[in-house]
Amino acid sequence: MNTSLNKIALLLEGEIAAGDPDLVVTGFNSIQEAEPGEITFLGNPRYAAALKKSNASAVIVDRQFTDVPPAMAVIRVDNPTLKFSTIIQRFGPPKQTFDPGVHPTAIVSPNAQLNMDMTYVGPHVVIEEGAIIGDGSFIHAGAYIGRNTRLGAKCVIHAHAVVKERCKLGNRVIIHSGAIIGTDGFGYEFSEGKHLKIDQVGIVQLDDDVEVGSCTTIDRARFGRTWIGEGTKIDNLVQIAHNCVIGKHCVIVAQVGISGSTRLGNFVTMAGQVGVAGHLTIGNQVTFLAKSGVTKDYPTPGAYTGYPAKPLIEGRRMLTYPARVPELLDRVKELEERLAALDGKKPSKRKKSKADASAEQ
Amino acid sequence: MNTSLNKIALLLEGEIAAGDPDLVVTGFNSIQEAEPGEITFLGNPRYAAALKKSNASAVIVDRQFTDVPPAMAVIRVDNPTLKFSTIIQRFGPPKQTFDPGVHPTAIVSPNAQLNMDMTYVGPHVVIEEGAIIGDGSFIHAGAYIGRNTRLGAKCVIHAHAVVKERCKLGNRVIIHSGAIIGTDGFGYEFSEGKHLKIDQVGIVQLDDDVEVGSCTTIDRARFGRTWIGEGTKIDNLVQIAHNCVIGKHCVIVAQVGISGSTRLGNFVTMAGQVGVAGHLTIGNQVTFLAKSGVTKDYPTPGAYTGYPAKPLIEGRRMLTYPARVPELLDRVKELEERLAALDGKKPSKRKKSKADASAEQ
Amino acid sequence: MNTSLNKIALLLEGEIAAGDPDLVVTGFNSIQEAEPGEITFLGNPRYAAALKKSNASAVIVDRQFTDVPPAMAVIRVDNPTLKFSTIIQRFGPPKQTFDPGVHPTAIVSPNAQLNMDMTYVGPHVVIEEGAIIGDGSFIHAGAYIGRNTRLGAKCVIHAHAVVKERCKLGNRVIIHSGAIIGTDGFGYEFSEGKHLKIDQVGIVQLDDDVEVGSCTTIDRARFGRTWIGEGTKIDNLVQIAHNCVIGKHCVIVAQVGISGSTRLGNFVTMAGQVGVAGHLTIGNQVTFLAKSGVTKDYPTPGAYTGYPAKPLIEGRRMLTYPARVPELLDRVKELEERLAALDGKKPSKRKKSKADASAEQ
Repeated sequence: MNTSLNKIALLLEGEIAAGDPDLVVTGFNSIQEAEPGEITFLGNPRYAAALKKSNASAVIVDRQFTDVPPAMAVIRVDNPTLKFSTIIQRFGPPKQTFDPGVHPTAIVSPNAQLNMDMTYVGPHVVIEEGAIIGDGSFIHAGAYIGRNTRLGAKCVIHAHAVVKERCKLGNRVIIHSGAIIGTDGFGYEFSEGKHLKIDQVGIVQLDDDVEVGSCTTIDRARFGRTWIGEGTKIDNLVQIAHNCVIGKHCVIVAQVGISGSTRLGNFVTMAGQVGVAGHLTIGNQVTFLAKSGVTKDYPTPGAYTGYPAKPLIEGRRMLTYPARVPELLDRVKELEERLAALDGKKPSKRKKSKADASAEQ
Repeated sequence: MNTSLNKIALLLEGEIAAGDPDLVVTGFNSIQEAEPGEITFLGNPRYAAALKKSNASAVIVDRQFTDVPPAMAVIRVDNPTLKFSTIIQRFGPPKQTFDPGVHPTAIVSPNAQLNMDMTYVGPHVVIEEGAIIGDGSFIHAGAYIGRNTRLGAKCVIHAHAVVKERCKLGNRVIIHSGAIIGTDGFGYEFSEGKHLKIDQVGIVQLDDDVEVGSCTTIDRARFGRTWIGEGTKIDNLVQIAHNCVIGKHCVIVAQVGISGSTRLGNFVTMAGQVGVAGHLTIGNQVTFLAKSGVTKDYPTPGAYTGYPAKPLIEGRRMLTYPARVPELLDRVKELEERLAALDGKKPSKRKKSKADASAEQ
Repeated sequence: MNTSLNKIALLLEGEIAAGDPDLVVTGFNSIQEAEPGEITFLGNPRYAAALKKSNASAVIVDRQFTDVPPAMAVIRVDNPTLKFSTIIQRFGPPKQTFDPGVHPTAIVSPNAQLNMDMTYVGPHVVIEEGAIIGDGSFIHAGAYIGRNTRLGAKCVIHAHAVVKERCKLGNRVIIHSGAIIGTDGFGYEFSEGKHLKIDQVGIVQLDDDVEVGSCTTIDRARFGRTWIGEGTKIDNLVQIAHNCVIGKHCVIVAQVGISGSTRLGNFVTMAGQVGVAGHLTIGNQVTFLAKSGVTKDYPTPGAYTGYPAKPLIEGRRMLTYPARVPELLDRVKELEERLAALDGKKPSKRKKSKADASAEQ
């Protein structure tokens, strides 16, 4: 990097609030990992304490932030996180590029359509017959594109991702390594003591700008389509079952599971490890916090948490209520004793409830 | 499709309860996605409201169901879901077929046994030495079959699935893309401040008609076998640890995790995201609802829910009890005030319990 | 196997407490699966009951253990589990070996560095330019090593594992099949109604003796590194998000999810399905039990459970408190009735609280 503090301030349209403008910055790093000579940034005020222990020589902070360690050079900017992206783009490692062309070990069906001058097809890729690959797409090493599957322009299918037959991907769709698009939905009919497989003949449709994380599985519909709307971002290890319809610009965080035929509106957020039952309808702008269990329709925008998921404040309170039970038991016992002193009676003997008994198991 | 309502009714052994028998049906689709001209079906009464908003021109319903929108043609049948499968099979996309033969890019050990005229081996498949592949099997693109692994007849190993060395698969076993069968069990011995790897020399055995979903991992036994019984169906992203024994005809839904050496009976159902501790015994016909935590033996058939999992009705009540705590606090406070008016005493001061204190964190 | 009981006792430095020293042992197996002629072991006293039903002809037990079925030959040793490992190593299947060399179908960039005489590179492997593979490493069938990624000595990259560009692996690192190292972190900026992808230009660093399970995903840092410390063992289907720092000798069990920028100390244990929020700090020797939800810093060594996770005893009690609510409701009702007999008043009518109402949903 080796760039002066002054040049960095100019690049970020920031002002130097402390430090020598001629200080040479040797690199950029996180607060915890920065070494002397490097510049870091404070994007989240919760790291203010960590900043005081940082070895960074300079820091980019918000224009309002004042609690900077004395020995550190400071550049004030409007949005430190965003401005740090500018530094990363300018001084970070160059993006890796792959020139168009089909690797000699790729197996591309003569009946597939792709423009060899406009597409990268890596080693050991398989593209089956009838597949259509939009221009500007990258199909990386070992990826598999099934029969009659269509990709729009500028898609990126990372190494070892699988997109099975007849699926439809829009433009600029990104599928990360190990994701499996178009596996059979999990459907059986129980008959004569056995689970008989129900054919899953539908497809998966991913609209423009969808991104799918590693080892995420999106099952094909029983018929019709499992459908992910434009701009929706899906993290790693997510399960989306057959016939789900996910709206536009949703965010589905890692290890979420959504059961079959559930429909999400637009701008829905699901934090990590949320589980959603099947055949439900979730409205626009609904957010579920981590580990929530979703067992009914949620038509109303807002944040929900818990199992079953409740509105945020109430859901959080629900987590604290059990801790009040010992106090309640004490207070009730005392009331019983005081009342006995007045009326001379004892509380009824009660059989242990089933709940008590099983709590002791 | 372009088939008359009448012909469809004949095919399904149903009766036309409304609509012109000569109506030309152009396609089939779900209630929500059907367009004018298409036929849909009502398999689950919860979709009756959605049916009223559907653009479908015709619907297949149960013989008892009467609440059909006025403008829609209606065929009554005995089992609408099953009968709709008939339509899908007849008018849906043809199943993709792969002719027997070994792709020239497949690496099949000369010491592996397979009948080239009876087996499909796709591009970039690897079949190691000593492997035996039963007739009528399909080993799709990029799949890996380890040394001395045996597959029965008519197995389907989907693209990029991995079955490691010495495993035993019965007949008609299906392994979906990205599933990993036979990874080392997660076993270490802690010694001198380090976790030393314990050799995992057992195998995985999958009996006839087992189906394993995408990105599901089934670890090989420390010794002996991790064993999945006949007809058991496993969804995507499931973890089955070393030395588990799963009975026959079980259903294990997505993102379930089962710890080492746990044994399940037959006809066990685990809904999504259930977690099961190790070294447990689960009896026949036990069902755990979604997200349950299983920490002890469950010998008795029945449905259980919650963490720790309790019998269904009780487990559901447990989820509602915390919500009664605020009411109890109010009522106890009022009792204390009324009693003070009689005996002139105040409730004892009590230190905040640990539980109270931490609930406030 | 076919080895005398006496020879086995000598091998294990144990003593024969029952049985004919000349008894020929035909094999070894688990308590439940052993057949007549085979030897088994009792490593965990919870299997004492199962031992009585076992068909094994001999058993290895701890020197203190006395409750052995009468007809079974017995060898007493100091650590039955460890001593059984000796039997497995001696009489179990030989470890599979792969001779050094590069398979002709592997695509190894001429700019990659590896010693062909000291490295196994399997069929269909891809090693991109600038990669460096340490001596004694095994890169199994279909694995992918990205550009400029460095592996230390004696690493094992199992079939179909993916290690993307610029990652750094120490010595003796094991990556199991289907694991994806170095996928983009899940980072977006919401702007004008869309989620814009934030470049993820950092790396993943795995120090010496790290082991990563199948279908586990470890995302590359936004910048800097996602870092897994020496000797840490990670099970299958785990998600580790961008910029996490995991200490040394941690154990992360299957299906755990750790959100971005969280830092773990050394010797941390996370049982199955634990979820951890982002930007947290977990101290040394902290253990979270299965399914715990971690939403704040845990600086203090110890075991925690629940959601939110509490110290072990308290966390377990929290699970039982809701079951006391029905009893409390009964006792309070009785108090109200007895008090009414004294003061002639009735309890205030109270509106249903929000919590009550929603509990009934």
